[in-house]
Amino acid sequence: MKKTTTDTPAKVLKVLDVSSGDSHSAGIQPITFVRQVITGCLYPRILQGDTLPPDARLRAQTLLQHLDGGSTGSYTESCGSMYVRNTIARSISLRDGGVLSHPDRVFITADTQRALMVMLRLLCQSEGVSAVMIPDPAPHTLTRLLDHVGIASVSFRLQETSGWSIDRAELNRAIQASRGRCSPRAIYISNPGNPTGAVQSRESIEDVIRFAHDERLFLLVNEEYQNTVFADGCEFVSYKRVLAEMDEEFSQSVQLASLHSLSNGIMGECGLRTSFMELVNLDEDVMLYTEVLLTGDLCPPVIGQIALDVMMAPPCPGDPSYCVYTEEVSSRLKTLQCNVSRAVSFFNDLPGFSCQSIQGGVFICPQLSLPHSTHTHSQPVGLLYSRRLLEDQGVCVGFSEDHTHSHCCHFRLCVLMPSDELEEVLGRLHCFHLKFLQEY
Amino acid sequence: MKKTTTDTPAKVLKVLDVSSGDSHSAGIQPITFVRQVITGCLYPRILQGDTLPPDARLRAQTLLQHLDGGSTGSYTESCGSMYVRNTIARSISLRDGGVLSHPDRVFITADTQRALMVMLRLLCQSEGVSAVMIPDPAPHTLTRLLDHVGIASVSFRLQETSGWSIDRAELNRAIQASRGRCSPRAIYISNPGNPTGAVQSRESIEDVIRFAHDERLFLLVNEEYQNTVFADGCEFVSYKRVLAEMDEEFSQSVQLASLHSLSNGIMGECGLRTSFMELVNLDEDVMLYTEVLLTGDLCPPVIGQIALDVMMAPPCPGDPSYCVYTEEVSSRLKTLQCNVSRAVSFFNDLPGFSCQSIQGGVFICPQLSLPHSTHTHSQPVGLLYSRRLLEDQGVCVGFSEDHTHSHCCHFRLCVLMPSDELEEVLGRLHCFHLKFLQEY
Repeated sequence: MKKTTTDTPAKVLKVLDVSSGDSHSAGIQPITFVRQVITGCLYPRILQGDTLPPDARLRAQTLLQHLDGGSTGSYTESCGSMYVRNTIARSISLRDGGVLSHPDRVFITADTQRALMVMLRLLCQSEGVSAVMIPDPAPHTLTRLLDHVGIASVSFRLQETSGWSIDRAELNRAIQASRGRCSPRAIYISNPGNPTGAVQSRESIEDVIRFAHDERLFLLVNEEYQNTVFADGCEFVSYKRVLAEMDEEFSQSVQLASLHSLSNGIMGECGLRTSFMELVNLDEDVMLYTEVLLTGDLCPPVIGQIALDVMMAPPCPGDPSYCVYTEEVSSRLKTLQCNVSRAVSFFNDLPGFSCQSIQGGVFICPQLSLPHSTHTHSQPVGLLYSRRLLEDQGVCVGFSEDHTHSHCCHFRLCVLMPSDELEEVLGRLHCFHLKFLQEY
Repeated sequence: MKKTTTDTPAKVLKVLDVSSGDSHSAGIQPITFVRQVITGCLYPRILQGDTLPPDARLRAQTLLQHLDGGSTGSYTESCGSMYVRNTIARSISLRDGGVLSHPDRVFITADTQRALMVMLRLLCQSEGVSAVMIPDPAPHTLTRLLDHVGIASVSFRLQETSGWSIDRAELNRAIQASRGRCSPRAIYISNPGNPTGAVQSRESIEDVIRFAHDERLFLLVNEEYQNTVFADGCEFVSYKRVLAEMDEEFSQSVQLASLHSLSNGIMGECGLRTSFMELVNLDEDVMLYTEVLLTGDLCPPVIGQIALDVMMAPPCPGDPSYCVYTEEVSSRLKTLQCNVSRAVSFFNDLPGFSCQSIQGGVFICPQLSLPHSTHTHSQPVGLLYSRRLLEDQGVCVGFSEDHTHSHCCHFRLCVLMPSDELEEVLGRLHCFHLKFLQEY
């Protein structure tokens, strides 16, 4: 549950919640063209005037023609409007240098959690204790989701000092250690990394694919931050593309679900609750069963489906809205990039903290390492620090404990927000941190 | 999956799907004020002009003030915006003659299926085979949902010849028959009835509450059609109100979840995927656990939450949009009432069919009873008839077999649609039915 204020003796501070990637809540404005198209669809009488630019009107009219009864109030197909699934598939093919994407392998869902829940149910129906290999640190919603569906996790440690990379030896160690305890069925990857900000190279992706192949693991790849890669010389390459371009031994056999969402990155439309996944190398029967499982939701939110259509096929050069759209996207990316640089320096200057530079995504993941002697409290340091930070300064951050070093932990902060808002967060953090160090 | 066309040798007929309650898809227009408020929230720059009426602008501004960052793109609390939950609770209290409703016992969910899924998980976690008592006929999505979560069903037959009433003796028979096979934890009621159209009297509701009390069953009550009651002298009374007005023995102990939704009845906003439930007499701990289970979805769709705010607090007398809103709602109700009357007469005039008159909801539930000798097919008659009807005339209806009389079945048809669309459905049905009778 979100809180909106917290009491301190001196004054009431507005809580600044940077623990999740909800950028609109932090003051990032929505992308105008997305909202214009949705508006046209929801309130078609507006299409008659010139309130909306002509390309937004045209897009809305086209989308309405593909909705039953011409209304966003109707159900679509259980796995999403076939029209929108076509848009998504075309866009994926373009992204992947022509690697084919089939709309009937694209499933629109109520959100990424729902897509993951369905895939986990599908993968882990056999006898015994099923498990999923997950990175450490992992997205904060992932372990809760695994608990929810009753699936064990097998953690592999990301290599912080080499930019949070995935190490094949560590993958081997983790899976060996799980033997006898549980049966890993899948490996979950977040690329660009949530919360690490690491962007995998093609070679790193190939490594993971080979590991999945050798261990017969399903690849659950969250690629929600694919449009927020900003480090120089760094680009997003999809698992789907890398897999398709590997030898047949891999490309024809390794099973993959790639997840993408409206909620994250530049769009930030969390409230619309819509995501999609593309499935690769699954049997037709399993695809059909996936559809059956998704049918329980009747259909994904229609407004979100419309926004997905825009996200996957934004205005083109020459379209009336192209300049505004492009300018809005690039200004948000620029803000993000400046904020990352500012926040990374900030933490590296703060006694006890260190922070890797990041390549993509919206989070930074600084490490706090306190001198051994200071840690005499019963609470783990991450929990203690973040609870006190929230109470004292109204700043809510995510954290993950370091299970091997009790005086160490990592924090997760979303930095996609207006720069003055970030300054406010860092200012409060600075103030709290010095007090915390003095006290402990 | 929806189809849009079907091939016949002669021509391509547009499929008319009357099996679900998706009225927008059948051509019913959305309620203007709902769409205006959503539009104002999604695209706030429209609030500056006079494109929208002043009360829609004011409502949108107020709602935006209660969304983090003033954007529909932000997450709300996991169980829905507390502002909207307050609106809902106030509206429930008004509906129930002042019986108090607490916003923290109102949970907004992605849709009714999700709410039910969470409640079923909560209720049926004990050892052994848990079951839910369900009416026969039942909403078509209910048995699928029970299968999905792995819960058995115990059917009780509704009394067709007395207007699809619930009979206490039949409830007793059903629960006795389940002994040794499974453990019923809850009883599911749909009032007004889907698909029967029956509206329960206060006495009938009291009967069910006493039964639930005696058998220690949780009451899962779907009241989605509470705003579409139209029979003379008939009014909707909520389970919550009846329960609150009974002796303490019942009012302080019987546990109840009452479900309501945007999707059904006059609103018909299925595509927005938002519902809510109110929980009564649950322990605080269980309420907290319900919240935890709902947290898996992060939050319900925000656009749907806005529409719920309007549905539960529509324009008041004197407001600029009051007349239009009232006129739109009453014209849809009038259409529904005319259609019901037309469709019930139609089926009663068709050889082999009989149809009870109905009091509320959007469905009719005619019975087909074929002469014994005609039924020489391997398929049950409901499946056979509806499959052939779809193939031959492109009309998709729901059906439920009669398990005791193989030559009997019931159909489910939504009749909330423009009257000329209903005539088209009935015309095709008539044409098919005469052919079907000749052939069999």
